[in-house]
Amino acid sequence: MSILVVGSVAFDSIKTPFGVADDVLGGSACYFSTSASFFTDVNLVAVIGDDFPQEHVDFLRSRNINLDGLQKSSGETFRWKGRYDYDLNEAHTLETHLNVFESFKPELPENYRDAEYVFLANIDPELQLEVLQQVKNPKLVACDTMNFWIEGKKEELIKTLAKVDILVINDAEVRQLADEPNIIKAAEIVRGFGPRILVVKRGEYGVLMFGEGSIFSAPAYPLEEVFDPTGAGDTFAGGFVGYLAATRNLDEHNLRKATVFGTVMASFTVEKFSLDRLREIEFSEISDRYKKIKLLTEFADID
Amino acid sequence: MSILVVGSVAFDSIKTPFGVADDVLGGSACYFSTSASFFTDVNLVAVIGDDFPQEHVDFLRSRNINLDGLQKSSGETFRWKGRYDYDLNEAHTLETHLNVFESFKPELPENYRDAEYVFLANIDPELQLEVLQQVKNPKLVACDTMNFWIEGKKEELIKTLAKVDILVINDAEVRQLADEPNIIKAAEIVRGFGPRILVVKRGEYGVLMFGEGSIFSAPAYPLEEVFDPTGAGDTFAGGFVGYLAATRNLDEHNLRKATVFGTVMASFTVEKFSLDRLREIEFSEISDRYKKIKLLTEFADID
Repeated sequence: MSILVVGSVAFDSIKTPFGVADDVLGGSACYFSTSASFFTDVNLVAVIGDDFPQEHVDFLRSRNINLDGLQKSSGETFRWKGRYDYDLNEAHTLETHLNVFESFKPELPENYRDAEYVFLANIDPELQLEVLQQVKNPKLVACDTMNFWIEGKKEELIKTLAKVDILVINDAEVRQLADEPNIIKAAEIVRGFGPRILVVKRGEYGVLMFGEGSIFSAPAYPLEEVFDPTGAGDTFAGGFVGYLAATRNLDEHNLRKATVFGTVMASFTVEKFSLDRLREIEFSEISDRYKKIKLLTEFADID
Repeated sequence: MSILVVGSVAFDSIKTPFGVADDVLGGSACYFSTSASFFTDVNLVAVIGDDFPQEHVDFLRSRNINLDGLQKSSGETFRWKGRYDYDLNEAHTLETHLNVFESFKPELPENYRDAEYVFLANIDPELQLEVLQQVKNPKLVACDTMNFWIEGKKEELIKTLAKVDILVINDAEVRQLADEPNIIKAAEIVRGFGPRILVVKRGEYGVLMFGEGSIFSAPAYPLEEVFDPTGAGDTFAGGFVGYLAATRNLDEHNLRKATVFGTVMASFTVEKFSLDRLREIEFSEISDRYKKIKLLTEFADID
């Protein structure tokens, strides 16, 4: 089953302690789609400027990503410039140029409106809701958000969350959204806003998934070299929703497997700039890391 | 098999967002011993002042903790005063009064010198080494340390670590000791100093255990109320070493179980001030939380 994703396509300029990249392919919709494409087909909705090179379009197509919903506007593509210090868990934004993204009105092509699996990447919650209103009968709606919207558009965000099944969000953002420092309590508060499943991303500390009366804890895949964390969260979401859509099964058991697949996908993204590592991998490498996470977490029962 | 522990017995004064406690029983050796006492017998080496009340001595005895090595000096008992804000992962020290601890020379009673399981709690690494030299033929030596010694006595600490099998230490301290921000690389560097097993405590993010070619990741037990984190690390160590000593088995399989038991013990300590929660629990509650951590981490294999 294919997925509908709405989000950003961007050029990123990034400095980490390990290197520098200028105007490389990025954006939430790119990371999500490329990651999800290892599991299922993706229908992408986003906007690019007239500076967007054909080679990037070709790459996305090569991953079986449907670009009927990729609008081209006159002007420059969205640009983000950021820096990471040794604490790679925290991105420092240096510049944001919305460019064509500023007037982006997501318009779903007719062939996208039957989508059953939807991912609303981190964009204005009002746009997220507009997209959702164009989808006829979604089976699963997942979404992401960030501190910027929690601070500036909390009311609109909560309205969107009422229509969402799964919220995928950062540790600090859950606490902020719930106004509660304890993560267990914060999760319950946020689940009260609508999403029956809450997936909390904790960077190198892994992921917590909260469901009805259950919690699942998955560690991050241990890496000796974390080169650039940009896109890790969207890549996680791509693996997570991608696996759910491919298997068409939303039970707890399968949600846990999806969480681990998401974790694995994110572990590749952070090993190189941009989508460079995702461009190289084979599915066997994904399975291999899944099995390693299994070994990492196993311990014996007691009587 | 009984354990020998050397560390502090203290009065703690603590302020957290949830309450205030004055001059309550604390200290690394107290937390460790009480926690380990749920698994095996403990021989304690520490110093108290002449202000130390009989009721605390009686409590430790009631837990089958041998106090032949508890020296009584004239003067006041070690006192620590600290504060936690909403980020309960970080303690802010307000006052430290070493008092009788300042001139503490650990002297092992004759009946302690055959100890097979030894825990050197967080004290001056030179004292840790002196204790070790009094033990005839230890089977397992575990130890803790802190940033204060890493900064002030790194050379002495590294000399002690050469004699240590298991180092139990905080996340930030491993990175500091190794001078390496990546935790996987830092762990290998620190294992190079001597300890074949490194247990990295990450507060609410759980524990990573590094062995020869293996890593084990255990989450923290999810708690809705973390009241006071003081003593969590020593309580972890007590459960961890306590279980190993009780089962006399140091294979990977058993080290993982010990890690989970340590995690469970720490989860009780943080629910109340001082040792108050540990005073109440039964072994069945420990088993229950062990099983819940198992459920928290389980996910299915893939083909």
